Amino acid sequence: MKVAVIMGSTSDLPVMQDAIDILKGFDIEVDVDIVSAHRTPDKLFDYGKNAHTRDIKVIIAGAGGAAHLPGMIASLSPLPVIGVPVKSSNSIDGWDSVLSILQMPGGVPVATVALNGAKNAGILAAQILGASDKCILDKIVAYKEGLKMKVEQGAIEMKNN
Amino acid sequence: MKVAVIMGSTSDLPVMQDAIDILKGFDIEVDVDIVSAHRTPDKLFDYGKNAHTRDIKVIIAGAGGAAHLPGMIASLSPLPVIGVPVKSSNSIDGWDSVLSILQMPGGVPVATVALNGAKNAGILAAQILGASDKCILDKIVAYKEGLKMKVEQGAIEMKNN
Amino acid sequence: MKVAVIMGSTSDLPVMQDAIDILKGFDIEVDVDIVSAHRTPDKLFDYGKNAHTRDIKVIIAGAGGAAHLPGMIASLSPLPVIGVPVKSSNSIDGWDSVLSILQMPGGVPVATVALNGAKNAGILAAQILGASDKCILDKIVAYKEGLKMKVEQGAIEMKNN
Amino acid sequence: MKVAVIMGSTSDLPVMQDAIDILKGFDIEVDVDIVSAHRTPDKLFDYGKNAHTRDIKVIIAGAGGAAHLPGMIASLSPLPVIGVPVKSSNSIDGWDSVLSILQMPGGVPVATVALNGAKNAGILAAQILGASDKCILDKIVAYKEGLKMKVEQGAIEMKNN
Amino acid sequence: MKVAVIMGSTSDLPVMQDAIDILKGFDIEVDVDIVSAHRTPDKLFDYGKNAHTRDIKVIIAGAGGAAHLPGMIASLSPLPVIGVPVKSSNSIDGWDSVLSILQMPGGVPVATVALNGAKNAGILAAQILGASDKCILDKIVAYKEGLKMKVEQGAIEMKNN
Amino acid sequence: MKVAVIMGSTSDLPVMQDAIDILKGFDIEVDVDIVSAHRTPDKLFDYGKNAHTRDIKVIIAGAGGAAHLPGMIASLSPLPVIGVPVKSSNSIDGWDSVLSILQMPGGVPVATVALNGAKNAGILAAQILGASDKCILDKIVAYKEGLKMKVEQGAIEMKNN
Amino acid sequence: MKVAVIMGSTSDLPVMQDAIDILKGFDIEVDVDIVSAHRTPDKLFDYGKNAHTRDIKVIIAGAGGAAHLPGMIASLSPLPVIGVPVKSSNSIDGWDSVLSILQMPGGVPVATVALNGAKNAGILAAQILGASDKCILDKIVAYKEGLKMKVEQGAIEMKNN
Amino acid sequence: MKVAVIMGSTSDLPVMQDAIDILKGFDIEVDVDIVSAHRTPDKLFDYGKNAHTRDIKVIIAGAGGAAHLPGMIASLSPLPVIGVPVKSSNSIDGWDSVLSILQMPGGVPVATVALNGAKNAGILAAQILGASDKCILDKIVAYKEGLKMKVEQGAIEMKNN
Repeated sequence: MKVAVIMGSTSDLPVMQDAIDILKGFDIEVDVDIVSAHRTPDKLFDYGKNAHTRDIKVIIAGAGGAAHLPGMIASLSPLPVIGVPVKSSNSIDGWDSVLSILQMPGGVPVATVALNGAKNAGILAAQILGASDKCILDKIVAYKEGLKMKVEQGAIEMKNN
Repeated sequence: MKVAVIMGSTSDLPVMQDAIDILKGFDIEVDVDIVSAHRTPDKLFDYGKNAHTRDIKVIIAGAGGAAHLPGMIASLSPLPVIGVPVKSSNSIDGWDSVLSILQMPGGVPVATVALNGAKNAGILAAQILGASDKCILDKIVAYKEGLKMKVEQGAIEMKNN
Repeated sequence: MKVAVIMGSTSDLPVMQDAIDILKGFDIEVDVDIVSAHRTPDKLFDYGKNAHTRDIKVIIAGAGGAAHLPGMIASLSPLPVIGVPVKSSNSIDGWDSVLSILQMPGGVPVATVALNGAKNAGILAAQILGASDKCILDKIVAYKEGLKMKVEQGAIEMKNN
Repeated sequence: MKVAVIMGSTSDLPVMQDAIDILKGFDIEVDVDIVSAHRTPDKLFDYGKNAHTRDIKVIIAGAGGAAHLPGMIASLSPLPVIGVPVKSSNSIDGWDSVLSILQMPGGVPVATVALNGAKNAGILAAQILGASDKCILDKIVAYKEGLKMKVEQGAIEMKNN
Repeated sequence: MKVAVIMGSTSDLPVMQDAIDILKGFDIEVDVDIVSAHRTPDKLFDYGKNAHTRDIKVIIAGAGGAAHLPGMIASLSPLPVIGVPVKSSNSIDGWDSVLSILQMPGGVPVATVALNGAKNAGILAAQILGASDKCILDKIVAYKEGLKMKVEQGAIEMKNN
Repeated sequence: MKVAVIMGSTSDLPVMQDAIDILKGFDIEVDVDIVSAHRTPDKLFDYGKNAHTRDIKVIIAGAGGAAHLPGMIASLSPLPVIGVPVKSSNSIDGWDSVLSILQMPGGVPVATVALNGAKNAGILAAQILGASDKCILDKIVAYKEGLKMKVEQGAIEMKNN
Repeated sequence: MKVAVIMGSTSDLPVMQDAIDILKGFDIEVDVDIVSAHRTPDKLFDYGKNAHTRDIKVIIAGAGGAAHLPGMIASLSPLPVIGVPVKSSNSIDGWDSVLSILQMPGGVPVATVALNGAKNAGILAAQILGASDKCILDKIVAYKEGLKMKVEQGAIEMKNN
Repeated sequence: MKVAVIMGSTSDLPVMQDAIDILKGFDIEVDVDIVSAHRTPDKLFDYGKNAHTRDIKVIIAGAGGAAHLPGMIASLSPLPVIGVPVKSSNSIDGWDSVLSILQMPGGVPVATVALNGAKNAGILAAQILGASDKCILDKIVAYKEGLKMKVEQGAIEMKNN
């Protein structure tokens, strides 16, 4: 049982690493690859058509600008696809990445997260696995507890200053 | 095993009905309710905290304007939450709904779909269940086949005209 | 020598018809088809990979929302691809269509025209053919002359009122 | 009689400090806390439900991105709530913070100030107290007089240069 | 003790009536007037400078397009000013009204509500009075209870259908 | 015969200096002042009402954020008013300044130039004087000739590299 | 002494008529013509180069979409040019017209008015003539007085209802 | 057989150089010049009217802000014109350049590429020549193969790390 993390270019890796890290933190196996919708369309096709036969359960796809990777993977695969809009150097303030991932037509959804929100993509993938895996669900509950404690700790420190 | 479909107001029902219909078409049980983040905060809390104990596996939440329902449910529940930005009458062209659902902070994801994209929210929920349920996965494969055939039929008709 | 006019859905035809009409007015053969990036990805692949072997010289591709058809065709074909952003019913004022066609990454251009600007896509395709075909170039010169005369005629009528 | 200044994260403190400072300058007691709508929802609920019983008269809430804190506090408390959209690091140029605070549905207002406008939030809170407290109203009149004098002083210096 | 409701033009009245109605529902006296920043600057000055001497405690100001009325009143008066961005006929989707009211410089706040959100402006004015008037605060608590009951009633009706 | 150059704050001077410089280059007398719509409303009123009696023929007004200075001066003065949207530090990418100056209601125009376009404001003021002053018109013709020569010089240098 | 009112297409006339009407109301001679930057470039050149020799003192130019007419006239003529962004049928909510008229480069100003703000263009042209013509200035003062009286009349009627 | 690369200012050269370089890489002759729509209108006219008589087959035009160069060249020449929106220093995040090039009226197309996308403009020009030149078409096929190999190489390196 694996989560795939793919991206259009190695330049997206610094953003996408957050997804990889959080998934590994949940002890979920991650399958990382570079798949460019515009430069390696054959790989895109093979990847999208076969991912669900390779024990992959969720695909996280990150891309910038006119970001077609998440939507095209969603076109090719029956698996849930999470799209991460990356604010690439050629982006118009991120709007292009966001809209070209979010605004998919009826029939072919992409679960879109915030701009550069790869960490949340990883958590969402874990939650998807957790929908049928009590052990992962428990880890998510614990993770959320950790978030709470960090905020409360911050509040205490602020008041002590 | 159920999918919850909740919305902030009965006025969101015409949009959210698409999610209910597609899920029923996949023979998935749907739990529909009105939960307003701003007008029924106690219900919001109870709902968010207990959904995963009521055999709900995925929560679809639709809201318009400053749409806080999906994010707050995601704050309260360990389940995957799908957010549907609704273009309500007081919306600024839908941008408010989209951004207040999409741009969640690190730690608390909402799987956002297109503006008024409730149908895709339903399909995505089915895909999430399908990640661990071969029978639902097969239905999604069949559904996608149906989409393809409809396009091909349209192409034939257009050429015959 | 043909120009292809493809679109993601029959619902795009009312907009895309302008491209077909203007090309026919220039006596250029048009090859019309429905190719959906998200619902018929196999057809997309075949179409994109083979268009240049079927005497097609330019491809006009129209799509709305998260519009991936023009960019994916450009990924698959060595031919010049003209993208027409269609303001579909699920579009956010057209911005999604415009940005997901225009903002292609370095290496894979799409010649983007105005929102719903299928007529200009047709003229641009004719100009591309005209770059190496004196006869078509002359028709474009004549077409521009016609535009001028219509404006001048309008100016005269306005002054006579 | 106190004004509460709360924020979603300690990272918002550099912006929100302006509200604290200006209120202290008006000799108004300030109650500062970290309350995250998405990471400490229980604290959010307790805070919102009880603030008006703790001699708090106005609540200033700052948050960035999909900023739900001001609206959720307004949902839970009968007190006037002032929202400060913070341009956080994950924000899309501040639009997400602004719209998710400003565009509240009918029935649950948030008094929204400019992006990063915590200083104005503090002044507004003082004005709200001043509506029934002659002494604070006088301080506001004096503060405005000070603004005027600073501009006039700048004008003189500019002309002397 | 009165709340003023002013607007730039009689054409704003259909939107601003919501503020008047909700305030009257709270038994709060309302002072309605037309004050145009751009066409009656003298009246603007008199109004802004003297409102606090006429037993007015809060000023609600609505305007569209380049909406200067709320900010100029805030410049002239020490009272809390609530701005209602009106989507007038010449507005660019409401963005001009929203930004020219919201983005006030440091020192001169305007409490901005949603586009066309006059109802919320009225509730906010009541909350401001309620900060020092237990009787009004109780009415707001009751009003919020009413909102809750209406949502719950809607939920019951939806489930019965 | 003078052109007034006013601005809301000394912090606008680095931008507005371009207007002063170009006007001085045309040997036009310039009257510079700080007039804040929000902090010195009395000065605003005096200035706007009397400028045309002080031999001022055109008023250039620059401001940022919710920029009310140009529109309020236009409300008070019968003279042509040129507005310069300044991208101040609290601006949302300049959109607030642009829209709150440009979108004036019918009856009260502001001649708006580009964001931070103070130089063009100065040229426009000269052109307005030049409409009735042949000597200034000639200087504008010469200025435009200079622009042309600089571009042509740049073209030559580029080709020589 | 004339004011020119030109537009890119007869379809712009319903918007531009407001400029013609208000100028005629000020007894200013108006010279109306259709000049398309994109379809009649020769006429554009002749018009722009010679307007100032034909007793024209100000040019009002209206256009929609990628609106190049005002800027190109400003390039060719030493006269002050007022640009009216027209919200044409192919416009993206008017943003294209506004930005392609407003954002002129340093050296070549266009005095831009609000979207569809032809009436204000006419008033601005009158103000420009009024800068050197006491009689027109007096008419503008009277016009502003009329605006004031209409608002005051509206206020009285509203209070009587 | 040449491709023209023109731009409004030498300051656009760093962006436009990408077009020149890629064309030279395809062994296509390039004709570079500075042509400013707003500062050298006569040169613009001569250039646009005669380019097709000088063995130029495609014109690439780059400009920023209110970018009129591509559209005006398209108005004057029967050749295909490719527009490159340049994010110049006075641009509002590039939106002005994009919209004033993209949104051309029906009859006069400009093939628009991404913001600062000069490289893609060069490739598109090569593709246009390739529509009738088998040798260039082959180079484009090879170029695309090179893109693919670089992505695959990056994927291998990433996995090896």
